Amino acid sequence: MILVADNLHVVNPAIADAVTRMIPEPIEQMVRQCEQAGAQAIDVNSGPLSRQPEKRFAFFVETVQAVTRLPLLLDTTNAVALEAGLKTSRNPAIINGFSLEPSKIERILPLAEKYDTPIIGYLLDTKGRVAATADEMMALAVELFGQFAATGLPAERLIIDPVVAPMTWENGIAHNQNILALLPCLPDLLGTPVRTIAGISNLASGPVATEKKIALEQAFLPMLAAAGLEMALLNIDHAPTVQTARTCAALLGDAVFSWAAISPA
Amino acid sequence: MILVADNLHVVNPAIADAVTRMIPEPIEQMVRQCEQAGAQAIDVNSGPLSRQPEKRFAFFVETVQAVTRLPLLLDTTNAVALEAGLKTSRNPAIINGFSLEPSKIERILPLAEKYDTPIIGYLLDTKGRVAATADEMMALAVELFGQFAATGLPAERLIIDPVVAPMTWENGIAHNQNILALLPCLPDLLGTPVRTIAGISNLASGPVATEKKIALEQAFLPMLAAAGLEMALLNIDHAPTVQTARTCAALLGDAVFSWAAISPA
Repeated sequence: MILVADNLHVVNPAIADAVTRMIPEPIEQMVRQCEQAGAQAIDVNSGPLSRQPEKRFAFFVETVQAVTRLPLLLDTTNAVALEAGLKTSRNPAIINGFSLEPSKIERILPLAEKYDTPIIGYLLDTKGRVAATADEMMALAVELFGQFAATGLPAERLIIDPVVAPMTWENGIAHNQNILALLPCLPDLLGTPVRTIAGISNLASGPVATEKKIALEQAFLPMLAAAGLEMALLNIDHAPTVQTARTCAALLGDAVFSWAAISPA
Repeated sequence: MILVADNLHVVNPAIADAVTRMIPEPIEQMVRQCEQAGAQAIDVNSGPLSRQPEKRFAFFVETVQAVTRLPLLLDTTNAVALEAGLKTSRNPAIINGFSLEPSKIERILPLAEKYDTPIIGYLLDTKGRVAATADEMMALAVELFGQFAATGLPAERLIIDPVVAPMTWENGIAHNQNILALLPCLPDLLGTPVRTIAGISNLASGPVATEKKIALEQAFLPMLAAAGLEMALLNIDHAPTVQTARTCAALLGDAVFSWAAISPA
């Protein structure tokens, strides 16, 4: 499983300030920390960037790639900012992302073709809502894949994100179980192997103690890994979760096993 | 997932001595500890008991049930001892267990009928070996179920144990992945829902640091839980593993979710 840090996010006030005022240091420091903690890719999340979107997102991407060669997930709903990021990026880039919402189909998806870039597709309906049932989730996957395939891009450029729900949502627990059931079925459902990503920070929304967040992550990540998840988006500072991901790789034969490899942090 | 303590085992010298000399206190103390640590059933493992098997195993069972009402897994390969245990047990009992080895079919399996007791069936061939491939594992399950069904007992009395392998076995990692693939298929394969158990202490055999054992258990248990495992046999003193099991129950909708429920120990 490829570990993608979600730490570089404008919900962090230091990052928000650095992006707004275009100060590199806090961003550089965070990127170095992420790489040191085991990140294999970094989500560059600027939020919607209502002002100076091109300038600011290009600065954000440039600042990140000045200190890392890791792949970058360019994470903004602002298509103008996103295109500036794609023009700036020398590191391998992934667009994060589109869904069946018409604005995303019209403005974000075409950038995957224009810049020859993999793109994350969220299993969200035309109104940005998650599926209410397992059948609806499968239907969304089929529809999303159809929209993607219509661009003519090869299937391996699509990375499906089934959108993990918070445990406290009314239907969150059932939704997350539907994800576990869906992942192994995707190749049969879509008629082709397909890449996948899931963000596990979302399991605990709001002010929850870190130890509880980590407990949830440590239990859900192995379930996702065994279901075939390719990339996990997570808080890379959660060392026990990162350790669990490494142990999963050993258990699933994705990494050479040694007792040293599974030493807790 | 039902948590079964494997702590009451004659590999523990204090327990071995207590069984041999028929001293209740070390056994009683261990049973109380297991129940306090969250055990929902207790494996009563006496080893083969070459001397005074009936007297010693009856003493062992009697001593355990004097301090707990939990279900007991009567765990000995000695059929004479086992029968004495079945006669003694007032707590719900489970025979642990039989396999396709002829001696087990002839001497252990009939006790499940005679004493109207659920029985664990190991996926081991006639020579006591695990399956080398996924297909062989499925074939063993079908054959074991056939032997069990021939007794006339109802399917829900059989509890299949796919026998988790140590990570360091040549084929151990692939074997354990075969288990994850088998568990969800068992109802279709056997034509009926079937109960399951797996022992996760076996992941790490020999002298391995406790923190590494726990890291493996914490990663593998959620995979087993998501695959539908009903009972986990484990070292109940491994508090982080027990906590992970509880978090799995919340994630899989087997327990009412609350943030308090997933507090790490």
